[in-house]
Amino acid sequence: METRHLPTRTAFLGAAQAARLVARHGPGRCLQGLAQAIEADFARWPDFEKSARIAHHSLGGVIELMPVCDEQDYAFKYVNGHPGNRLQGLPTVMAFGALADMATGMPIFLADLTLVTALRTAATSALAARHLARPGSRCMALIGAGSQAEFQALAFTELLGIEQLRVFDLDPATMDKLADNLGHAGIAAARITRCASSREALDGADIVTTVTAAKRRQAVIADADVRPGMHINAVGGDGPGKTELPVELLQRCRIFVEYPPQTRVEGEIQQLPADAPVSELWQVITGQAPGRTQDDQITLFDSVGFALEDFAALRWLHALARDAGMLQPLDLVPALADPRDLYRLVRDAAHLDSRA
Amino acid sequence: METRHLPTRTAFLGAAQAARLVARHGPGRCLQGLAQAIEADFARWPDFEKSARIAHHSLGGVIELMPVCDEQDYAFKYVNGHPGNRLQGLPTVMAFGALADMATGMPIFLADLTLVTALRTAATSALAARHLARPGSRCMALIGAGSQAEFQALAFTELLGIEQLRVFDLDPATMDKLADNLGHAGIAAARITRCASSREALDGADIVTTVTAAKRRQAVIADADVRPGMHINAVGGDGPGKTELPVELLQRCRIFVEYPPQTRVEGEIQQLPADAPVSELWQVITGQAPGRTQDDQITLFDSVGFALEDFAALRWLHALARDAGMLQPLDLVPALADPRDLYRLVRDAAHLDSRA
Repeated sequence: METRHLPTRTAFLGAAQAARLVARHGPGRCLQGLAQAIEADFARWPDFEKSARIAHHSLGGVIELMPVCDEQDYAFKYVNGHPGNRLQGLPTVMAFGALADMATGMPIFLADLTLVTALRTAATSALAARHLARPGSRCMALIGAGSQAEFQALAFTELLGIEQLRVFDLDPATMDKLADNLGHAGIAAARITRCASSREALDGADIVTTVTAAKRRQAVIADADVRPGMHINAVGGDGPGKTELPVELLQRCRIFVEYPPQTRVEGEIQQLPADAPVSELWQVITGQAPGRTQDDQITLFDSVGFALEDFAALRWLHALARDAGMLQPLDLVPALADPRDLYRLVRDAAHLDSRA
Repeated sequence: METRHLPTRTAFLGAAQAARLVARHGPGRCLQGLAQAIEADFARWPDFEKSARIAHHSLGGVIELMPVCDEQDYAFKYVNGHPGNRLQGLPTVMAFGALADMATGMPIFLADLTLVTALRTAATSALAARHLARPGSRCMALIGAGSQAEFQALAFTELLGIEQLRVFDLDPATMDKLADNLGHAGIAAARITRCASSREALDGADIVTTVTAAKRRQAVIADADVRPGMHINAVGGDGPGKTELPVELLQRCRIFVEYPPQTRVEGEIQQLPADAPVSELWQVITGQAPGRTQDDQITLFDSVGFALEDFAALRWLHALARDAGMLQPLDLVPALADPRDLYRLVRDAAHLDSRA
């Protein structure tokens, strides 16, 4: 085994610095970098020790821990989902995570992952669509125009060549915000069509991205509006009892997932029998399972978000922040003069305090 | 439900500040406070959503996540165990954790827990022994004299009235370090007897604490040396394949554990059939199960460390640090001007950078 020279202090990247890093590189280049990092790690899927995330639910939402490791690196993310948070001025989703060294357990990097979670989710969707959408797809319907919809729009224009966006949201102001933010990112208003219904949005779309704040079992698109050849990128349904697609539609789709043990609990396929056939994204990426095989298939990427995406994102972010000189030391765990003598910490601290 | 006024920024307590706080209050008072906090939370055991910790193993050790919540608060700890770390100048065990608000998912407190983990483990052992050891126990054998042994010695002298310590460690220098550190904490050398074997250490002991760095299935004390009426506090065996006690001894003991689904995998009782009878510490604390019922029983607390101890410890530490004015704001997750507009972070950061 190679010797790695690891730091003995934890490096930190806060939320403001993470946003600055993304702004400097541009969201488009970040999405490219993330998709590349995620694809590379999905391509070596068997290297990882994987498990479904650990969720703790309350009336208002969910808090989750998402760990994963290979032989060398360990990563975990903390993430919440609380749809009512905006009433208290807090984001619906907040996330942070850490990278650690498997050989020593030393946490080497701690970072805000709120913005990066939004980017990695969109990058994973675009990555899946590269393998599953019809070649030459140019028009995407967006059902839901919240924060994640904006990152989805960016990812699909940047990574897949989507030229036209057909947007539907129950709230017109949310569509205004999306158009304004996409304008800032270089997507001209002429490329965005506001629609009066999901049916209208799906009309002529090659790809359908559903990314609503559905809180129950809902059907944000109608089965009858989905035509042969479409690729559905289902992002919004991501918890038990929280789905976006009608079950009749699922029965017409070839279904692709990140990690079956987690998706069967959290994804659209919680509506199907536990043994309903699905393909895994990593198998498609490595050529071990076919992606789309015919133009008239309806493909579905049932996205819920998997720990390996955060593993890849943390390593990508760590490298980017290091290159930018943005890492700050954080006293997250102690350095000991004699690693066998933990009590010495108390003695030294008492000594320092008495001299102060 | 009561309205709680929660901070919108995460508060941080680093390793140096945590040690300073412990030194100021004194380890004895900290152990008292922790035992009280842990007992109070164990007494309301059914309030918590519990699970076994999630462990990722490598050749060199293990990294674990330990989450738990009640209706109001969520806590998790990150902790590693890498016996070979001292060769690289790193502590064997490093830990940090966070408290979050269940209603919003906001992480309100992030802290080093390395020193606090050592303290809470010892406090839990002493708490268990209060219910399980013979009343009037005055002499404790310590098998293993590493860092945790020192905290165990402090906890049992402070919380249980132990007056005499009989210590055995394979390494005499480790026993020197223990005596030196205990001297600093006010335990006179005359109260510490160095023994040449575990048999000698157990001679006359009321309580036996095993806290070695056993890496395999070992027997650090002999079955024949354990006499009726002893209480055994087994701390060192805490992972699959890592035990300290001979199985014959287990068969003579009344066994008490923290959380059976975790202890059956990690504790001494991994050597017993999966349905071997055990009592849970919380049941004893609440009077729902008997502790020691006869003077000649051999009782065993099979300690592995449970998330609820860290939940209690984090809340205790948070209050202590707040009262001491030691909390520092940390930019762990973003504050958004409009919580529905995550992309605004990128725009604002770009704007700031362009003005810089």
